[in-house]
Amino acid sequence: MPIFETQEETPKIKERLHRVGITNLRSVAKINWKGKVYTFLPLFEITIDVPEEKKGIHMSRLVESITEAMSEAVEEEVLKTHTSLEELGKCIIKRLEGKHPHKRAEVWIRTHLIIPRETPASKRLSYEPYDVEVGVIKNYDGSFEKVLRVKVIGNTACPHAMANNNGKTHIQRAVGELEVRANFDEEIPLEDMIDVVESSFSHPTYTLLKTIDENAVVQGMHANPKFVEDVAREIFAKAKERFNGKIHVRVISNESIHKHDVIAETWS
Amino acid sequence: MPIFETQEETPKIKERLHRVGITNLRSVAKINWKGKVYTFLPLFEITIDVPEEKKGIHMSRLVESITEAMSEAVEEEVLKTHTSLEELGKCIIKRLEGKHPHKRAEVWIRTHLIIPRETPASKRLSYEPYDVEVGVIKNYDGSFEKVLRVKVIGNTACPHAMANNNGKTHIQRAVGELEVRANFDEEIPLEDMIDVVESSFSHPTYTLLKTIDENAVVQGMHANPKFVEDVAREIFAKAKERFNGKIHVRVISNESIHKHDVIAETWS
Amino acid sequence: MPIFETQEETPKIKERLHRVGITNLRSVAKINWKGKVYTFLPLFEITIDVPEEKKGIHMSRLVESITEAMSEAVEEEVLKTHTSLEELGKCIIKRLEGKHPHKRAEVWIRTHLIIPRETPASKRLSYEPYDVEVGVIKNYDGSFEKVLRVKVIGNTACPHAMANNNGKTHIQRAVGELEVRANFDEEIPLEDMIDVVESSFSHPTYTLLKTIDENAVVQGMHANPKFVEDVAREIFAKAKERFNGKIHVRVISNESIHKHDVIAETWS
Amino acid sequence: MPIFETQEETPKIKERLHRVGITNLRSVAKINWKGKVYTFLPLFEITIDVPEEKKGIHMSRLVESITEAMSEAVEEEVLKTHTSLEELGKCIIKRLEGKHPHKRAEVWIRTHLIIPRETPASKRLSYEPYDVEVGVIKNYDGSFEKVLRVKVIGNTACPHAMANNNGKTHIQRAVGELEVRANFDEEIPLEDMIDVVESSFSHPTYTLLKTIDENAVVQGMHANPKFVEDVAREIFAKAKERFNGKIHVRVISNESIHKHDVIAETWS
Repeated sequence: MPIFETQEETPKIKERLHRVGITNLRSVAKINWKGKVYTFLPLFEITIDVPEEKKGIHMSRLVESITEAMSEAVEEEVLKTHTSLEELGKCIIKRLEGKHPHKRAEVWIRTHLIIPRETPASKRLSYEPYDVEVGVIKNYDGSFEKVLRVKVIGNTACPHAMANNNGKTHIQRAVGELEVRANFDEEIPLEDMIDVVESSFSHPTYTLLKTIDENAVVQGMHANPKFVEDVAREIFAKAKERFNGKIHVRVISNESIHKHDVIAETWS
Repeated sequence: MPIFETQEETPKIKERLHRVGITNLRSVAKINWKGKVYTFLPLFEITIDVPEEKKGIHMSRLVESITEAMSEAVEEEVLKTHTSLEELGKCIIKRLEGKHPHKRAEVWIRTHLIIPRETPASKRLSYEPYDVEVGVIKNYDGSFEKVLRVKVIGNTACPHAMANNNGKTHIQRAVGELEVRANFDEEIPLEDMIDVVESSFSHPTYTLLKTIDENAVVQGMHANPKFVEDVAREIFAKAKERFNGKIHVRVISNESIHKHDVIAETWS
Repeated sequence: MPIFETQEETPKIKERLHRVGITNLRSVAKINWKGKVYTFLPLFEITIDVPEEKKGIHMSRLVESITEAMSEAVEEEVLKTHTSLEELGKCIIKRLEGKHPHKRAEVWIRTHLIIPRETPASKRLSYEPYDVEVGVIKNYDGSFEKVLRVKVIGNTACPHAMANNNGKTHIQRAVGELEVRANFDEEIPLEDMIDVVESSFSHPTYTLLKTIDENAVVQGMHANPKFVEDVAREIFAKAKERFNGKIHVRVISNESIHKHDVIAETWS
Repeated sequence: MPIFETQEETPKIKERLHRVGITNLRSVAKINWKGKVYTFLPLFEITIDVPEEKKGIHMSRLVESITEAMSEAVEEEVLKTHTSLEELGKCIIKRLEGKHPHKRAEVWIRTHLIIPRETPASKRLSYEPYDVEVGVIKNYDGSFEKVLRVKVIGNTACPHAMANNNGKTHIQRAVGELEVRANFDEEIPLEDMIDVVESSFSHPTYTLLKTIDENAVVQGMHANPKFVEDVAREIFAKAKERFNGKIHVRVISNESIHKHDVIAETWS
């Protein structure tokens, strides 16, 4: 029986679609980072453009581009080329080029990083989790860009309340987000972006804190009171200095004295 | 053309199902609370049981029970009988009794309450939001129960850090949840449950805080340091004293010194 | 005791912040829509800019701008001027102009609309829920823009599977999102945007469906098979024809044959 | 300087708390499953009880129990004993017994499993994602229980619409959840629970589907129409036959003809 390729038909309405594909796909990713292989279970999104004269895309070829890149058969490829999430994303687009014609393509990978840290006083090992997202974009002109995003949990100790209450203040968890959009070849490690955000709060946070560590964090927060505005400014200034690209900063503070959050956001 | 009532057929596998119906239905609810009509846009869930010998239920009759209860035609009914979310739930079950045979039924209604408060120092008006959920359960024996849930945002100021840092401590947003499961006729206003939770934190929070109010909250939190355990114990003890029913308490504190949360939970 | 206004100090790092304020604030909104007052409990976000030489903003004044606009004292104002969510947003910014100096401001309001519809065959009344979001932006040059977003639940019946399976196909829920960014004075009712999206699926969906209505929907979906690409193109073409502004369309189909979703997105 | 152990003080309100600890902790887990080591980044919750006479617990010791179990130092332990998520959970409780006195303890681990499958017609390899959660509970009497949960994405093809529309029907994504609560030593592989759920839908779903596979799924769904009630009954009957323990089933169908979901739930 012949197979009808409905996707290849001409649609009634002729409009170019910039992004068509699959999203919310949970799969495996292996990254050879500085010589050691790490396994992730990220959420993937992969899209291509659809020109005016085509009705649709062949979705299964996008899935193949992701899953083949993960399969046992390419273990060697992993070790050689998947040295970062964005290199993996580019490999997926390169693999897709042999499978499905397109002019524009995007791959997005969202996962967690766990990074070992040393606690401030007892110098114990603490594993810290961070949310990261990497987008690789092949533009219509063939150039490659990347979008790197990190989300870091920290805190703010309010300087206004501190000034008005003899050193006592309200403190709360805050979440800092940094996005850098850059040429693909710019050297911008996610770990460096995380450092920029984490070092801009009143104090970094830790998963493990013995009492002497907890004391150090409490003293540190009080020694470094910051508005959510201060955190956003510091992330933005540091990021502009360290990274080449378009920078977007957003900090949300889960106020301990309010039921709502406060927000500070800026961009270059 | 005859309509096949597939739902009335005998299923291949014979098992009683306790809860079958519709969920995540956003609709309108009007409540006549102490003589004034309030409008909500809650999420509804409504289920009935299915006996071993029936394949399925007639879902549209459940929808009718909800939407008819809301329609213009019953405005008068609203004014007389919908005096609380649980009375509305019971009305929906009563209406359903004339539409679909069943032995057991549940209605769940999830919405927000906005309650006016006075700020602690400037005595300004502040509107405070709370998440509430009400379940009405008709048991197999025909008796009616209700499940009432409130979720209140407050804070914890750590007594351990305070003792070890000369009065300085870490503070954070905390969320207290109280559930009471009781006979339908027990008098348990949601507002009273909210008061029990809100008064058990280091200090209540406010949407509007002028500087003198903010100072009062900061001083209050430091005067009343509490572990998440202390908050849970206080909610539990107060709730047992004020409400007849099975009580469940859960408090989650969004630690400002950690990336994870801490939790304290207990039940009667 | 003098109150320190820490917000007015000069920050160490000098960077303009474009958006500083409060977010995730649940409050009340009353809208006089075509002569009848509707009550909502939306989520609000309100932000202003912070110039290089100021450390922070006075957050409580933003809260006041929202809550005063809702208070009993302005019931008359509601009846006259809050004729849409965007008019309410503009009123909040206007009120804020007298409270806090700024050059740029945004108000975002996110809520649900419930719209009565007639079912396709039995002509019964069905209340349909939609997610909507409205942003009002006062730009640095003083001009006002608005961003209108609707999210509508519909479905797709796959034309490719239908062609290859003698009229049988896979069908699934799909979610269509339409955003229009326009000058504030453009006449763009949210209801019209919802119509554009809802009429572009394989068939509209209904909360209440008697069997003859269900049959009409099933027949209708099979008579009108569509890729997610077709839905996106149709929304985009209709929106460009009906609304003046920058248009963004995104459709996500929760595939019944896959565990992931498919996506089609485009913009003007 | 002496350290105050506030946790050891006697609280004002004397109530036993059954569950106190940490939650929403993202960390690393390595499981040696049938001789091969898999890495996950799960969310952890770990709690112990607090007796009436103690104010609080030492939270950092709970964190240590998790992170030490993951550290390089115990790689050998991983290979020997972490042969499943529940064995890992029990190891964490065992490690905790040496660190913090308690009578009752729970560990919860939530992650994704990716399982290779063969597509129905082209016999291609497809990686399928599943959400799983494992709880290990040490009861007050010292006995160990486990709670195993799987969440599987499938579909329902409506038999009622099919009977009334000459074989045409509405189809949609559905999500089946199965929970088994059992003695710790019962042999209940998560993969078997996933099979029970996945085989009970109108048809299993696949991440990768070439056209001939898509046809097989479409034909299969139409050959096997099921209400959400049928899916729940089949999961329940199979689970009772295969697993010793208390069983809870919930199926939610994301209706393609409605904006709400339908639900079928039962338990033993």
